Amino acid sequence: MAKDKVILAYSGGLDTTVIIPWLKENYDYDVIAVCIDVGQGDDWELIKGRAVKTGASACYVVDARQEYIEEYIWPALKANCKYEDQYLLGTSTARPLIGKILVEYARQEGAVAICHGATGKGNDQIRFELAIKAFAPDLRVIAAWRDPKWDMDSRDAEIKFLEDRGLEVPMKKDQSYSRDENIWHISHEGLELEKTENEPNYKHMLKNTVCPEEAPEAGEYVKIEFEKGIPVSVNGKKMNGLELMTELNKIGGRNGVGLVDICENRCVGMKSRGVYETPGGAILYAAHEMIDHLCLDRDTYHFKQQISLRMSELIYDGKWFTTLMDACMAFVDKTQETCTGWVNLKLYKGSIRGAGSYSKYSLYNESIASFTTGDLYDHHDAQGFITLFGLPLKVRAMMEQQVGEGQAVKESKNLKKRPTE
Amino acid sequence: MAKDKVILAYSGGLDTTVIIPWLKENYDYDVIAVCIDVGQGDDWELIKGRAVKTGASACYVVDARQEYIEEYIWPALKANCKYEDQYLLGTSTARPLIGKILVEYARQEGAVAICHGATGKGNDQIRFELAIKAFAPDLRVIAAWRDPKWDMDSRDAEIKFLEDRGLEVPMKKDQSYSRDENIWHISHEGLELEKTENEPNYKHMLKNTVCPEEAPEAGEYVKIEFEKGIPVSVNGKKMNGLELMTELNKIGGRNGVGLVDICENRCVGMKSRGVYETPGGAILYAAHEMIDHLCLDRDTYHFKQQISLRMSELIYDGKWFTTLMDACMAFVDKTQETCTGWVNLKLYKGSIRGAGSYSKYSLYNESIASFTTGDLYDHHDAQGFITLFGLPLKVRAMMEQQVGEGQAVKESKNLKKRPTE
Amino acid sequence: MAKDKVILAYSGGLDTTVIIPWLKENYDYDVIAVCIDVGQGDDWELIKGRAVKTGASACYVVDARQEYIEEYIWPALKANCKYEDQYLLGTSTARPLIGKILVEYARQEGAVAICHGATGKGNDQIRFELAIKAFAPDLRVIAAWRDPKWDMDSRDAEIKFLEDRGLEVPMKKDQSYSRDENIWHISHEGLELEKTENEPNYKHMLKNTVCPEEAPEAGEYVKIEFEKGIPVSVNGKKMNGLELMTELNKIGGRNGVGLVDICENRCVGMKSRGVYETPGGAILYAAHEMIDHLCLDRDTYHFKQQISLRMSELIYDGKWFTTLMDACMAFVDKTQETCTGWVNLKLYKGSIRGAGSYSKYSLYNESIASFTTGDLYDHHDAQGFITLFGLPLKVRAMMEQQVGEGQAVKESKNLKKRPTE
Amino acid sequence: MAKDKVILAYSGGLDTTVIIPWLKENYDYDVIAVCIDVGQGDDWELIKGRAVKTGASACYVVDARQEYIEEYIWPALKANCKYEDQYLLGTSTARPLIGKILVEYARQEGAVAICHGATGKGNDQIRFELAIKAFAPDLRVIAAWRDPKWDMDSRDAEIKFLEDRGLEVPMKKDQSYSRDENIWHISHEGLELEKTENEPNYKHMLKNTVCPEEAPEAGEYVKIEFEKGIPVSVNGKKMNGLELMTELNKIGGRNGVGLVDICENRCVGMKSRGVYETPGGAILYAAHEMIDHLCLDRDTYHFKQQISLRMSELIYDGKWFTTLMDACMAFVDKTQETCTGWVNLKLYKGSIRGAGSYSKYSLYNESIASFTTGDLYDHHDAQGFITLFGLPLKVRAMMEQQVGEGQAVKESKNLKKRPTE
Repeated sequence: MAKDKVILAYSGGLDTTVIIPWLKENYDYDVIAVCIDVGQGDDWELIKGRAVKTGASACYVVDARQEYIEEYIWPALKANCKYEDQYLLGTSTARPLIGKILVEYARQEGAVAICHGATGKGNDQIRFELAIKAFAPDLRVIAAWRDPKWDMDSRDAEIKFLEDRGLEVPMKKDQSYSRDENIWHISHEGLELEKTENEPNYKHMLKNTVCPEEAPEAGEYVKIEFEKGIPVSVNGKKMNGLELMTELNKIGGRNGVGLVDICENRCVGMKSRGVYETPGGAILYAAHEMIDHLCLDRDTYHFKQQISLRMSELIYDGKWFTTLMDACMAFVDKTQETCTGWVNLKLYKGSIRGAGSYSKYSLYNESIASFTTGDLYDHHDAQGFITLFGLPLKVRAMMEQQVGEGQAVKESKNLKKRPTE
Repeated sequence: MAKDKVILAYSGGLDTTVIIPWLKENYDYDVIAVCIDVGQGDDWELIKGRAVKTGASACYVVDARQEYIEEYIWPALKANCKYEDQYLLGTSTARPLIGKILVEYARQEGAVAICHGATGKGNDQIRFELAIKAFAPDLRVIAAWRDPKWDMDSRDAEIKFLEDRGLEVPMKKDQSYSRDENIWHISHEGLELEKTENEPNYKHMLKNTVCPEEAPEAGEYVKIEFEKGIPVSVNGKKMNGLELMTELNKIGGRNGVGLVDICENRCVGMKSRGVYETPGGAILYAAHEMIDHLCLDRDTYHFKQQISLRMSELIYDGKWFTTLMDACMAFVDKTQETCTGWVNLKLYKGSIRGAGSYSKYSLYNESIASFTTGDLYDHHDAQGFITLFGLPLKVRAMMEQQVGEGQAVKESKNLKKRPTE
Repeated sequence: MAKDKVILAYSGGLDTTVIIPWLKENYDYDVIAVCIDVGQGDDWELIKGRAVKTGASACYVVDARQEYIEEYIWPALKANCKYEDQYLLGTSTARPLIGKILVEYARQEGAVAICHGATGKGNDQIRFELAIKAFAPDLRVIAAWRDPKWDMDSRDAEIKFLEDRGLEVPMKKDQSYSRDENIWHISHEGLELEKTENEPNYKHMLKNTVCPEEAPEAGEYVKIEFEKGIPVSVNGKKMNGLELMTELNKIGGRNGVGLVDICENRCVGMKSRGVYETPGGAILYAAHEMIDHLCLDRDTYHFKQQISLRMSELIYDGKWFTTLMDACMAFVDKTQETCTGWVNLKLYKGSIRGAGSYSKYSLYNESIASFTTGDLYDHHDAQGFITLFGLPLKVRAMMEQQVGEGQAVKESKNLKKRPTE
Repeated sequence: MAKDKVILAYSGGLDTTVIIPWLKENYDYDVIAVCIDVGQGDDWELIKGRAVKTGASACYVVDARQEYIEEYIWPALKANCKYEDQYLLGTSTARPLIGKILVEYARQEGAVAICHGATGKGNDQIRFELAIKAFAPDLRVIAAWRDPKWDMDSRDAEIKFLEDRGLEVPMKKDQSYSRDENIWHISHEGLELEKTENEPNYKHMLKNTVCPEEAPEAGEYVKIEFEKGIPVSVNGKKMNGLELMTELNKIGGRNGVGLVDICENRCVGMKSRGVYETPGGAILYAAHEMIDHLCLDRDTYHFKQQISLRMSELIYDGKWFTTLMDACMAFVDKTQETCTGWVNLKLYKGSIRGAGSYSKYSLYNESIASFTTGDLYDHHDAQGFITLFGLPLKVRAMMEQQVGEGQAVKESKNLKKRPTE
């Protein structure tokens, strides 16, 4: 009789390679490895071979980069989502898609379980598992590192596990930092970062971005075009999402932009500190914010800021496939209907600054804003505006005067005695 | 019989100098000029003389710099207030204090009116007048530029007005841009900025900050110490607010940090574009945010972000002396009780990056965050957490399954068919 | 040569009747009267005749009741919008539609101006004029009561104005209170309500609702069915919006439900006090909230509450035709996709209480909620959940212990000494 | 050698009585029972005896009613906190206090653990344990029902456990519904409520409130006086918190007010349905909201609504002793400084309606609000206000016109063709 199948989220690294024989021994499943390419830059053919050699009955590689950019990154970008004012959500946006694809393979293969190798201290386990629950509440989830049957607690134990079985040990990628890489970003944790007092050792750490100190003195201009909040061209050349991110990562990377060093609050109740490289992303966020500044009216811009805070939490917490996320995205999409135009930026040794922007839907109206009074705006209108806008302050002050000197309501704001020599 | 008195917010510039004789002729008031020094860097003795020569019956100069920093800047800093994600509220924070001091002099002098020279298109008229309303609802406000009796519509008309009366015309400060300067910032509007397509002409414009391109190649570290969210020392040297801002403006200015170029939504319903220099302020915001990251728990940090958005609006709109502002400040102060510690920053050619931070109240706990499992956190706890945290997604997915394939509730999220060759 | 045309928002009352000849005399316009029926319950044929007899060159009556209910009331209901916790926005929702229809007639007739008779102290002038600006920024708006050429300041002056010209004076409707009536509600202002100390004189005031004291002792059940958040049947009978509101107003009115007495903050900076009758509306709000309780998950319900607050402000302030309103409605519509089901209510002498509700999309899961442990939920999962959910509190408490007894961070919460006799 | 001690949250009911011997047998602790009286209405002497007879080495009874009302209820009332629009947080507010008192006894007695008997499906376990973590991160918490050593899964098993040991079985209180009672409210869960389709069987269920149908026909007026948002007198008689709640519960109870039937979202991810009786509380909420309406300006009232939503979540989730809760309370207290005055209400057969209110700090200004124009408000000011307030709509509409007919930006809002026959 055929064995039950499990879908394994496979990266080709040591942890998930160990999981293949571990699953077979402990659960008696057929293991289907699924590699989801969101831009890790790995050699997938090699990894595929490794999965099969280590005992997987099949290994699929899915190029999800375009889908990742267009269906996960763009929505976050349109909303200007930053977690705790800094983090551009690179890992958080990729996990739900990976979870969803795992379910797709589980369904296609008729698997009864999905297995992942995320640790029990992190956010990723949540993001994977919430995505799985959203589509397949009936599937069993095996989180190897939290599994009662899992007893390896170090890399050495894992290596021994493979060697004991005569299985090949994957060549160690540089493991100095704990990293997650995709087409949008790279995160770094561990080593000197574990003490908040320490400065990050950027020279040692950075992979896709140069240190600002090493960026070219000339700097570089870059021009981005948006349609409805989505970037569609770089320096005048139309590109799809994947081409565009590839290009911007190069441009941003060589100019040292997009570094973030943050002590953030994880979803699981602890703080952790990380450094992120998001070279292309930082360019897009700066540019997109300028388009919003041009095209959104005040009420919309301000309330969208609140929506953005909530969406950032949802994304960080793995709640992508939820009604609230859908509703927030519907909100944002409506605001982006006129966010079409271009933005010019100057990148210079780690900094990004605006160098002009334009939209045919711009709500900036030079004839109103200029100091020369035009017929659209009469200075005297301000008189009535201020009278009504400030009426609540006046009413309150009158009440205070009436209630009496002796019982100043607004103590802390008492008028002072000033020198009149 | 003594004439009624008017308090004039006097800057020494052409506009407010013209207002002195204009007020006397049109309102038959005694004009008391009040100069409020919030760090404009002007020659107040000269200006004082000018006021009297032009007809003011008295001119007072108030050094409000310390008060401005400690009672207006620090509250905004503690809340990380940025208007529309960028503007550090340099003009907005100064205006309420100026309005309040005008009332103080009005009371001391027994004046019946207060006059200001802000234009009818800007935010400042609102900020001045709301402050006045909050303390003195009974006082008449004369906004010269909106006054029906005012008929000068150009600098030439103003100069002619003075010359016709044999009065001295103030030496023109550089008027290429429309500027507002104080100890916290300088704003620039006009000229090439009036077209959003244009890059700001920084070399021509900047006063206290060098262009990043001209900043020293070495860069510079700066260490800020905070007590309860308030900066108290720079590079190990304790300083009062004024000393500290003076020092940080120098440090930030020479490293080209703190430039903002934004198309913002004014309170009066239009967009305008400006460039801001806030060299010391940008350092403090970056540093303070890092202290918040260390010392505030997730719930507090996230909700404080919302408070910050609302406070930023209130400050921008001149609603400083309101109950809501008081309540927001009470909220923020409570969060800052443990925001004590230091932050190290690297400034480099226009960019600021973190270089370590420390607080004895830090909520970052290395033994919890580290990948080595400690006894404070059991990986298996995550199992139960995710089960409950994800329960709403599971319940919904089960409901969807039960309602039936044919009527997929969550259409947009349909699973895809993936290649399994 | 043909005269220019003005569209007049005509109600048939004294004020707008006077405006017809006033417009002709003061502006030399052809006056096109437009009556917009949103359920005022007026005799439109009579009113139409009056307009023409008083000098209008045409008078159109538009039955906008269905449109009002379906395109303006339903969106507010789906969002549970209440202004300042109480007011169901009856007048606020009708004004934008009226403004829009005025523009439609202005365009069709080629008019150059639109005139309304709302007072200068109220919200309605804002709501009319913002709707007009949103569609026709080029049209002149004449707000008769704020017009410099208007010099009538009392009903007597208005009557004399008509009599002087030999024009018929409209039969005075009961003018004891200042009222606005439509298919959704009636508002009452003035008389005893002008002192907040007074109890409303309900017996004198109410028009469509009985006093709770006079409602039948038996009470009444009513069952409402919703599809995607929109009510579609009453007591099992499918109805369109107009039929449904008509029926529910009768049912609610005879049971005395839906009275609100509130001192509210107007958009123009002052407080005013009013009483509202919303008999059918109160039923729908109660019922709809129950459907939301059944069908929305926690995150969605909670954030929708915030959206609702903002939408309520927007509606109250006349900002219906704005990007932010569109975006909020897109948010809400997404949440309502599964808000399909029925609600049973018991109305009894002014009170409404739930009497059961059902949805096939309900997220209430009896087998999870019940005290008998099922396999969907393991009590022990709560252990891990609480450990992580409470981790921030524990980390903080540990920090406090480490910082030391003497410097208790959390003073206000000191533990007390309790009796242990 | 002395045994280690455990503090048991003791109610005198079957569950916690069983826990006494269970703790001794399974943990070999000395059990100190602590009964915390928050108004359950129990016979504490009897219960105290039971604890000792069942094996507790001591039993303390703490009358925490006054503290509960003044330090937990009043803050929630001042903020108008309602969970999911309905629930007045009666159980949620009591749990943190109970948790804190348990810690106090643990410290006084030198106990090493705290034990409670809350189930693994509810919110209360969270509320107890978060309070304990906040004060005593070092103490062990034993949640009996989630404990691996606990194997009783029914009342019968518990009774047998006591009988097997020759211990007295507590007289069963009415257990038809699962209830929690205190001085603020009673909750009811279970039985017919487990199906949302069912109407609550109020006649069977209610304990402190009559069915509206059985309330007296005369109804009753009640007058509440507030000082800084806190109720201080009823019908003119000054009372402390306990007297006041006792009196209002009687008044509200006999008039049938304060019933809530809600399907709510628990913190642990599931929905549950309950009925709440809060007779006195409903009166206070209605009254307090009216004081807020009188005394708070628009900005403050509106933003306080958002604070209230967040505080309600925090309270519901057991996050009372957190920085965010402290900060929210600081916000609210600042708003309440002028919330002093009286409110008159009419209670009638389940409904509450306003019957007048007064504050010397009222911001309602009759001379401004009245239709007769006074000198505080000039109708013409509204002209300028609307021009600026509506400027963003006008600018957008002009942009749309300029961009061109063919590409209507605002499709959904197209003008219609209306009949003009």
